Amino acid sequence: MEGEGAYNKYAKLPAGGGALALPLLEKAVDAVRFEAGNQPIVIADYGSSQGKNSLVPMKTALKGMRRRLGADRPLSVIHIDQPSNDFNTLFEVLDADPDRYTLDDPNVFPAAIGRSFYEGVLPPGSVHLGWCSYAAVWLRRIPALIPDHFVSFLSSSAQVRAEFDREAESDWRAFLTMRARELRPGGRLVVVLPARADDGSTGFEKIMNEANAVLEEMVSDGDVTAAERARMVVPTYPRRTRDLLAPFERVAHFEGLTIEELVTLELPDAAWSDYEQDGNSDALATKHALFFRSIFMPSLAASLDGVRSGAAGALAQFADRLQSRLTRRLTRVPTAMHSFVQTILLARG
Amino acid sequence: MEGEGAYNKYAKLPAGGGALALPLLEKAVDAVRFEAGNQPIVIADYGSSQGKNSLVPMKTALKGMRRRLGADRPLSVIHIDQPSNDFNTLFEVLDADPDRYTLDDPNVFPAAIGRSFYEGVLPPGSVHLGWCSYAAVWLRRIPALIPDHFVSFLSSSAQVRAEFDREAESDWRAFLTMRARELRPGGRLVVVLPARADDGSTGFEKIMNEANAVLEEMVSDGDVTAAERARMVVPTYPRRTRDLLAPFERVAHFEGLTIEELVTLELPDAAWSDYEQDGNSDALATKHALFFRSIFMPSLAASLDGVRSGAAGALAQFADRLQSRLTRRLTRVPTAMHSFVQTILLARG
Repeated sequence: MEGEGAYNKYAKLPAGGGALALPLLEKAVDAVRFEAGNQPIVIADYGSSQGKNSLVPMKTALKGMRRRLGADRPLSVIHIDQPSNDFNTLFEVLDADPDRYTLDDPNVFPAAIGRSFYEGVLPPGSVHLGWCSYAAVWLRRIPALIPDHFVSFLSSSAQVRAEFDREAESDWRAFLTMRARELRPGGRLVVVLPARADDGSTGFEKIMNEANAVLEEMVSDGDVTAAERARMVVPTYPRRTRDLLAPFERVAHFEGLTIEELVTLELPDAAWSDYEQDGNSDALATKHALFFRSIFMPSLAASLDGVRSGAAGALAQFADRLQSRLTRRLTRVPTAMHSFVQTILLARG
Repeated sequence: MEGEGAYNKYAKLPAGGGALALPLLEKAVDAVRFEAGNQPIVIADYGSSQGKNSLVPMKTALKGMRRRLGADRPLSVIHIDQPSNDFNTLFEVLDADPDRYTLDDPNVFPAAIGRSFYEGVLPPGSVHLGWCSYAAVWLRRIPALIPDHFVSFLSSSAQVRAEFDREAESDWRAFLTMRARELRPGGRLVVVLPARADDGSTGFEKIMNEANAVLEEMVSDGDVTAAERARMVVPTYPRRTRDLLAPFERVAHFEGLTIEELVTLELPDAAWSDYEQDGNSDALATKHALFFRSIFMPSLAASLDGVRSGAAGALAQFADRLQSRLTRRLTRVPTAMHSFVQTILLARG
């Protein structure tokens, strides 16, 4: 994710997807089994990024818990992301954002963990409620380079796609196994993910293909070397519903987890709605390009020699050029970026 | 603290002070009351900075707890510092440092909180063991500008010193009040602080006065404006033993806390020992200047217009110039920087 708060500003799409999942989050909160006593209740936010997109779901969860538990029970909210995440922006958001969830409730205690959620991050049996929105779409590692694209699901290579399929299957099982261990018996986990339809479509084909063409242009123009381009992989992997269900096939539960609900919804493109109102194709293209930049650009930039050696300005220069080229391409044929979001509610027996 | 790991590299003096306090930390671990069950045990590291100086004390605490609890009880270690702390370095240290405390014990779970410890940071009654080393010497806020220096305890103004005395008294009480709330009954808190002798001396007079003279030079030479210099305050306040004891005078306990032990020890200057061996006055001056830079420089730099406006290189330029001038001055008369460290062990009834 792009640092210095960029993800917070421009990653509206994951925020929209997360918003569609709130009814299921409310159900999860109502279903959690709380033990007696005054031990803190633990909410884990797996893949928080810079925190802004977590505020509404965390407020929703906290409100539901307060209704059930009253004001006196301390509530811990723990935000998890990789060690390189922009934790300073996260803590600023938690400490000072006008929408912070501690504002009206001094008995809520935020914390953070900088470790991959494909490992164990919290003590066994310690989590009452888990939330993971648009984060488990990122694979744990890059299993192969992609000769003709930077995302596996748009590559024409069957071999590349198969390697990513295997990684994605193993990562989903690892994710569920770790969460199952961390959840208390009676705990609930809500996972929100961009969906891939049975025909393979995701809604992101156009922007990903345009960005891929931009990278080709940048190699031609010498902005990026061929070796740098060859290393560029964005390890996102939108899953089909059947991929999510696979670990639960023919078993009563997977690692103690059972599926209580799985909902797939259309996520309309908010930028497109604006465009339908105002007809401003530049604004539409800019919003889409900033969406791409804030979420996917850092994975691409990680391949640049200048960024790897820490050269001043290398990241910003690449990001700016990518963004302006992508905006220009997207302006030509205004296109909606409607996608699908699937939410899965899991219970720990 | 200077970012990008500089504090970790050059803040050897607080590490040495913390090392002297380990016997008291071991006593504290032996005295903590643990409840039955399998709930995680919570260790809070108040004022972790970038984490390196916390590794030895945390390992010491964890080892003592394992001896008492066995391997199966999950242990949480929570590092607290201000939202602007270098949390990326902290999480890298926790995740990948060769001396990280999770290396031999997968049942230990680190986390962090980005909030001032002068506020409540953890749920009431949730902490078994608190550790705070060389952090509570930093005041919560700057109560006054200091016309003739950048630290209050070397100012000739009685009025300035009185304002800092009041702030320090109030901050110490606030610190203890917050910790008392967070500790479980039977929990222990160990606080390590640089000490001020009854005659007012701290051992840091020489380096602070030389740095003050450097700032004068920098104003004369136009590196720093007079307005910037006037705003420069480093809000450290080494306390006398009687300052630490004041809240406990004439009361059976303060907010439920009682003092079990208070120890003051001399902290010999490790750089001086090296100098006595090798006679290298340049190396001595460089080590002292880097110590000053990594710990105190950022508080000074925060007053610079360039740093405030985020101008590229403004911080590094100031830091480099300050360091080279300070090194030059310190080389003239090689001087030992022996100081005193006091450790207080508190119990929550």
